[in-house]
Amino acid sequence: MELGKKTWVFADGDLPPQGESEPLGHEALMIVNNCGETAEITLDLLFEDKAPKEGIKIAVPAKRVNCFRMDFIIGEEGYQIPKGQYAVILTSNVPVVAAFGRLDRRKDMAYYPVAGYSI
Amino acid sequence: MELGKKTWVFADGDLPPQGESEPLGHEALMIVNNCGETAEITLDLLFEDKAPKEGIKIAVPAKRVNCFRMDFIIGEEGYQIPKGQYAVILTSNVPVVAAFGRLDRRKDMAYYPVAGYSI
Amino acid sequence: MELGKKTWVFADGDLPPQGESEPLGHEALMIVNNCGETAEITLDLLFEDKAPKEGIKIAVPAKRVNCFRMDFIIGEEGYQIPKGQYAVILTSNVPVVAAFGRLDRRKDMAYYPVAGYSI
Amino acid sequence: MELGKKTWVFADGDLPPQGESEPLGHEALMIVNNCGETAEITLDLLFEDKAPKEGIKIAVPAKRVNCFRMDFIIGEEGYQIPKGQYAVILTSNVPVVAAFGRLDRRKDMAYYPVAGYSI
Repeated sequence: MELGKKTWVFADGDLPPQGESEPLGHEALMIVNNCGETAEITLDLLFEDKAPKEGIKIAVPAKRVNCFRMDFIIGEEGYQIPKGQYAVILTSNVPVVAAFGRLDRRKDMAYYPVAGYSI
Repeated sequence: MELGKKTWVFADGDLPPQGESEPLGHEALMIVNNCGETAEITLDLLFEDKAPKEGIKIAVPAKRVNCFRMDFIIGEEGYQIPKGQYAVILTSNVPVVAAFGRLDRRKDMAYYPVAGYSI
Repeated sequence: MELGKKTWVFADGDLPPQGESEPLGHEALMIVNNCGETAEITLDLLFEDKAPKEGIKIAVPAKRVNCFRMDFIIGEEGYQIPKGQYAVILTSNVPVVAAFGRLDRRKDMAYYPVAGYSI
Repeated sequence: MELGKKTWVFADGDLPPQGESEPLGHEALMIVNNCGETAEITLDLLFEDKAPKEGIKIAVPAKRVNCFRMDFIIGEEGYQIPKGQYAVILTSNVPVVAAFGRLDRRKDMAYYPVAGYSI
């Protein structure tokens, strides 16, 4: 059964320092694909003061949830998100459900989930 | 009065270590049934790299909120969610309102609520 | 301008211990009334294993946001929410925007916002 | 591509103490403008027990995400949000996606994201 939306926006990305102990500080994008075919997904990133990075390609197999680390290189071309504020615009060929979260290790540990806007 | 939706998706489950002090690290699914009859609910779980676990049966009585610990065995058959990334797809015979949260005790204490997608 | 919805559900209330230092552990319900008249609001509470508490009366003046501490006595009759899992169903005579949050002081400090479901 | 809504409400603002170490305690409003033109935005603030502060003017360039610190002076006139509970009502001439978060440094570190209501 198809579940979700083809477009998701996460307005508040900002990669934290990794810190020194596991689990390391990071941000991640979780994508649920409940369809019967692979979800072909494009990520566009917006920044505060420079042009967007468009067209990052990722995929999620049918009937799987995948977790994409935003602090690792991402997409077919291996893009590294720079430090500072960014936003994620996700577009998929099939409906998906996405979630975005940060784990910050500066002084202990704090989670920061970012609400998704979907259409 | 019926309140809620019959389908909910939570995209970011990942059971944390329990830690050593109360309250122990865990994840939980809270379900509000404001209808006049029992909510008969099925949970399907999606994973990163293996086939889904489908058909976990739970129930919430009329006019109650129930909290299901995801780190305990769950459902009539007593299923244990494995370590690693998972997503929850909830379907109910009557409208319900659901919420999902994690409590992580690795280094102190951090809450992580996961947004629900509902239809 | 009217903004919001007349019904809100928060699925995951569970009053934490107060702890010993300010700000004390608590839960709170924030309600925005952007209308030109007072919002007359009823709260119904659902529990895990006992009958609901219905008909708690509160009000929010026109063009104000009010914060209701859920660990204090609440409503005209002075109701005290018991320990344990509960859910809040809010109904208002005019549209409002509501938010619900927990501050837990067991071992340092952790916020837990609870997503609202609104119709 | 236009993405988002022209009105957003955040029901739970309450500026935390700054604390003494970076990152300092604060609240922030993130706004994504994926349109081809500048988003001209007005913020109205509601309080618990005094009249609203209306008409704070901010702008977000085309194809950018901007982060507005709520603990700094804000808008063309340089308004300082007072201590205590407040709510934010955002109206934009073009659709935007907004998110609101708090970082509290009282005893370590805690994030508190505030759900947005949008129409």
